[in-house]
Amino acid sequence: MNFGSDNMAGVSPRIMAALAEANAGPAPAYGNDDLTRRAESMLQEFFEHEVAVAFVSTGTAANALALSCLVEPFGAVVCHAEAHIMVDECGAPEFYSGGAKLVGSAGYGAKLTPEIIVDVLERVGPLKPHHVRPQAVSVTQASEIGTVYSQSEIAAISVLAHARGLKVHMDGARFANALTHLDCAPADITWRAGVDVLCFGATKAGAMAAEAVIAFDPTLREALAYRRKRSGHLLSKHRFIAAQWISFLEKDHWRELAGHANAMAQRLAAGIAASGRGRVAFAVEANEVFAVIARADDERLRAAGAIHHPWSTHGIGLDPLPGDDEVFVRLVTSFATTERDVDRFLAVLGGKSA
Amino acid sequence: MNFGSDNMAGVSPRIMAALAEANAGPAPAYGNDDLTRRAESMLQEFFEHEVAVAFVSTGTAANALALSCLVEPFGAVVCHAEAHIMVDECGAPEFYSGGAKLVGSAGYGAKLTPEIIVDVLERVGPLKPHHVRPQAVSVTQASEIGTVYSQSEIAAISVLAHARGLKVHMDGARFANALTHLDCAPADITWRAGVDVLCFGATKAGAMAAEAVIAFDPTLREALAYRRKRSGHLLSKHRFIAAQWISFLEKDHWRELAGHANAMAQRLAAGIAASGRGRVAFAVEANEVFAVIARADDERLRAAGAIHHPWSTHGIGLDPLPGDDEVFVRLVTSFATTERDVDRFLAVLGGKSA
Amino acid sequence: MNFGSDNMAGVSPRIMAALAEANAGPAPAYGNDDLTRRAESMLQEFFEHEVAVAFVSTGTAANALALSCLVEPFGAVVCHAEAHIMVDECGAPEFYSGGAKLVGSAGYGAKLTPEIIVDVLERVGPLKPHHVRPQAVSVTQASEIGTVYSQSEIAAISVLAHARGLKVHMDGARFANALTHLDCAPADITWRAGVDVLCFGATKAGAMAAEAVIAFDPTLREALAYRRKRSGHLLSKHRFIAAQWISFLEKDHWRELAGHANAMAQRLAAGIAASGRGRVAFAVEANEVFAVIARADDERLRAAGAIHHPWSTHGIGLDPLPGDDEVFVRLVTSFATTERDVDRFLAVLGGKSA
Amino acid sequence: MNFGSDNMAGVSPRIMAALAEANAGPAPAYGNDDLTRRAESMLQEFFEHEVAVAFVSTGTAANALALSCLVEPFGAVVCHAEAHIMVDECGAPEFYSGGAKLVGSAGYGAKLTPEIIVDVLERVGPLKPHHVRPQAVSVTQASEIGTVYSQSEIAAISVLAHARGLKVHMDGARFANALTHLDCAPADITWRAGVDVLCFGATKAGAMAAEAVIAFDPTLREALAYRRKRSGHLLSKHRFIAAQWISFLEKDHWRELAGHANAMAQRLAAGIAASGRGRVAFAVEANEVFAVIARADDERLRAAGAIHHPWSTHGIGLDPLPGDDEVFVRLVTSFATTERDVDRFLAVLGGKSA
Repeated sequence: MNFGSDNMAGVSPRIMAALAEANAGPAPAYGNDDLTRRAESMLQEFFEHEVAVAFVSTGTAANALALSCLVEPFGAVVCHAEAHIMVDECGAPEFYSGGAKLVGSAGYGAKLTPEIIVDVLERVGPLKPHHVRPQAVSVTQASEIGTVYSQSEIAAISVLAHARGLKVHMDGARFANALTHLDCAPADITWRAGVDVLCFGATKAGAMAAEAVIAFDPTLREALAYRRKRSGHLLSKHRFIAAQWISFLEKDHWRELAGHANAMAQRLAAGIAASGRGRVAFAVEANEVFAVIARADDERLRAAGAIHHPWSTHGIGLDPLPGDDEVFVRLVTSFATTERDVDRFLAVLGGKSA
Repeated sequence: MNFGSDNMAGVSPRIMAALAEANAGPAPAYGNDDLTRRAESMLQEFFEHEVAVAFVSTGTAANALALSCLVEPFGAVVCHAEAHIMVDECGAPEFYSGGAKLVGSAGYGAKLTPEIIVDVLERVGPLKPHHVRPQAVSVTQASEIGTVYSQSEIAAISVLAHARGLKVHMDGARFANALTHLDCAPADITWRAGVDVLCFGATKAGAMAAEAVIAFDPTLREALAYRRKRSGHLLSKHRFIAAQWISFLEKDHWRELAGHANAMAQRLAAGIAASGRGRVAFAVEANEVFAVIARADDERLRAAGAIHHPWSTHGIGLDPLPGDDEVFVRLVTSFATTERDVDRFLAVLGGKSA
Repeated sequence: MNFGSDNMAGVSPRIMAALAEANAGPAPAYGNDDLTRRAESMLQEFFEHEVAVAFVSTGTAANALALSCLVEPFGAVVCHAEAHIMVDECGAPEFYSGGAKLVGSAGYGAKLTPEIIVDVLERVGPLKPHHVRPQAVSVTQASEIGTVYSQSEIAAISVLAHARGLKVHMDGARFANALTHLDCAPADITWRAGVDVLCFGATKAGAMAAEAVIAFDPTLREALAYRRKRSGHLLSKHRFIAAQWISFLEKDHWRELAGHANAMAQRLAAGIAASGRGRVAFAVEANEVFAVIARADDERLRAAGAIHHPWSTHGIGLDPLPGDDEVFVRLVTSFATTERDVDRFLAVLGGKSA
Repeated sequence: MNFGSDNMAGVSPRIMAALAEANAGPAPAYGNDDLTRRAESMLQEFFEHEVAVAFVSTGTAANALALSCLVEPFGAVVCHAEAHIMVDECGAPEFYSGGAKLVGSAGYGAKLTPEIIVDVLERVGPLKPHHVRPQAVSVTQASEIGTVYSQSEIAAISVLAHARGLKVHMDGARFANALTHLDCAPADITWRAGVDVLCFGATKAGAMAAEAVIAFDPTLREALAYRRKRSGHLLSKHRFIAAQWISFLEKDHWRELAGHANAMAQRLAAGIAASGRGRVAFAVEANEVFAVIARADDERLRAAGAIHHPWSTHGIGLDPLPGDDEVFVRLVTSFATTERDVDRFLAVLGGKSA
């Protein structure tokens, strides 16, 4: 009953096997090997666009690197108040960009809208040079509340951003889950919808440590390369991160992994809704379920061995707010979540023994 | 005949197997798992001292993180002119420390001495606040030229450094090789010799991507943790880097791997010396051989498939310098180098066919 | 009728004369001169406490320097959402601190309270090391809305801050105005009330370009000196900034200057209140008047030559908000504002000709 | 007999008077005033070229700002080993640029040559992305050793730099002295000779605190403005720094001030050479004399009240080096140096009483 995070799962067996297979003899270091070339080529095909790619070990590094290529030190990033880049990266974007500012706004379901962005731009930026200069908008897909932007929602944000001279960054730690949910072409919800740089996550989906900064403007290639090395994120035995990406993308393994996680989230959400012992608070469009349950039920679940985190209601438009005898919780599924895990949780929630 | 770098080798089979074993079910993320606790405990035992440890994926990140904990933005690091931190990290130490300065000096065999350090401190630091403030000395063990500091050499540097208010950082990307060569206790050439922070490398020795920042002053623990997260180097599925460290340390696997690489370097060096077709230019005390060979021989070797890099003679006291018809080359062995690789190289060098 | 800013005034004649007097022959540079020693000594006396002082040319530099001495790169500063450091310094605190984060909250009259701070600390900081680490609280005295913290208000904030491990920074660009209003000892509203570092402004009050970072913990002296030089804020002909401070402090010239500005603000506010043609929206406790007036009246005033800025209502608890036919304006008085300036403004406002 | 530094002199009477004159009533702040517009216009005329200008209080700030506009965080600046930016700015260029690296080389008379630069570029930059990326060359005019680059010397450096993708920065703290010495058009030794950004100093020449970053590429205007504000160097009562520049440029006041300082240096140098009691070690082409004198003479001079600094012989090609009974000293003249000051010094040196 581990719904703490998709980070707690191990590695997909297929990806682990690919790592072992990649261990066959010597290979050039620092990304000058065949597996790296192949992985980059597969991404180019995946997105149907020329891309500048930097593979790194963590999503925090990917986001910070990406933003540092889009935003100058005197710049600012418009994001949601609860965005991972704002709250949970210990200021990595500020570090990598030389102190650029993140300006966060509240928004329903942890999603930005053109209206929210316009409101920020009215207050931040006009008084030059006293104000920092907004240079990027950052959206998280799927959002920190497990909601997914539609293609038109992304496009609307991008059109506004570009009209105002801002680039568009997408934190895709759970991009695979969003893509699977939308079942469209990757290009449709990235560059075709105006996204300038995507941070595509494979780790939460089932890799060991594999994220990719994908810039759709190839002129960013050099800056990305220098900044990655300078931040200590250029792996020497680079073939191994490439091997993870190849097996993640090959034969739609990503869709299989994310699809399973999404399905488990649907099962969990449906069960909670049906139980009458809690309410699913936001649309479940990826692999996270945010629910309001009774404090007493939460305690019973934990006593029975469930692992999940209480979550902040700040800035996401949860309405109504939990009562004093309720808690707002996050439940995350992964490729490793079994139907049995879900059913056990629901059984305990529903008052039955494990 | 791949002597390009120890980065080109794959992963030791035992360490690869440990990765697969670590993939058994869920585990807490971000280092809160049992394997991490065990790896840290093993390091505490290995060094016979309480330590604050941060596992990261690359040596560049380790060095930069370590130095950022020792040096303020207005500080300076005294190092060799050809130190990896000075030349090959694209300014990572400057980045992580907020712009501290690296002051490099020439020195025989890429080693610092107390005299070199005193000379720097006479010129850099006295005029406050116009001069940056020297706050650390950095030594590479084994050095970039494959030489090894003895315990007393390290101690002499540390005594001087501490007397002048500087901390001592050790870049140990090839620490395992140096330790094996010296065959002493790890504590003897680290904290007992005055080292404040060691960056211990396992990657070049045979891991996939595993380095450790090891601070012998536990009060650095918190700053290390924040700075690691902030730099995007806190792995979420942290158990896997811990698994690499456990299998690296367990049953002296590190000594086996480094010892083999060292032995292959000795074999190579002896063969070059005996061939009369080149001179070994510096003591071979780890897994690197620096030699001066005829340009014609270098070309023959490459034509026969040898991979190795020409090297800069700058600042290392090579005497005599190579003639116009000679080249200075670096040959690196690894755990994966076979006697056959070495013998083939020597055969081609010696004029025989492969 | 220039109420645009106290920055628009020139220099007090007495301070200008002091500059000319200081121009008598050679003097040591970089602060090693007698005038500097005297100015520092006068500040020590003024605050009845040993102080580490750094004179700099702008308030932005003073704030950024001060905060960089209190907050590490992975740290955070709790401040008001409309604080000058947050909105109008183009990210200078982030720059100087190496990317620390500013966390702003709304608060009535641009003032922080212990409750606001507690609320922030509940959301920011607990999840180590993912959250930045709150290390300072910043209050502006007098606030950006012209309100003044009482001694007990400051003390309450400091007690809370220190209990939670945060230092207290005070942006005193208009400290002279606040001090004059409160008519207490400078020590009473700084270190006795728990303030760790004060940025004391003389420029807005009537100097040419003279601000002082005043740390009540003398151990900050060295870091302050290095960081000031490193930021290019150590003036070479330092005697001239010292001369401004001496004549500002000597014989209560500061009180004369600030007192006059405050009095003009009182006159203006009383007049607006009495005119029935606008409402004074916040307590006038320094040299700024924030009022809501009719758009039509605002236009007439500007047509008659009045200079003042419309102001943002964001985050300051203005209630009721201005109607569609009203504007929220800021009127700032200075040492150079005459009664005639004020009366002309009131006359035009009141419907009479200039 | 104060030859310690041109920083020790006060302010030229004409410039001090201009400050008083500028104090007539209110003016817009932050550079939006008429004096600022006039000063910028005068610089445009002075250099016969459109310029983006930022006035700041110190040379350190000017250099750091300029370099931060030319060099990315992963970049490097090629300069002399004894350049002010390398040695005496406490790492300000590293701070402002986000940690770019300064690579210093020895060179006769503290001057760079194309050969020196080529040698650096051979070692630094080729191995992407491991090496930082050289993006600027910095020359000091007049140099730290009081020598002056001719127009063709600057042009040769610029041609090489531009061919290799580097911009050219000129630290002109003593530019007025160099320009007076060369007696050519300002354009001839700046943009016509390939200089991209000049930091023009008025402070050492006789202003109170007035330096200008002058970019000959107007597209740098916006970045310069934001970075200046962000560094706390945008003065609020900006008219006063503009007033200093106007009176410095007006009616060749700069030439009068610098010319007098240069003439006093010539007088001093000639006297030392003629005295037989010391040797002038480098060409005297600005307002600095570097001489080798007997230790005993140095002591007598100091006992008689002379103020001057011993100087480092590091990296400037002084040949022969001072003997054990000699010292290498720097003597700096200013607009305030009198013939009497010079003659007294020479008298004491020559063995006569003061």
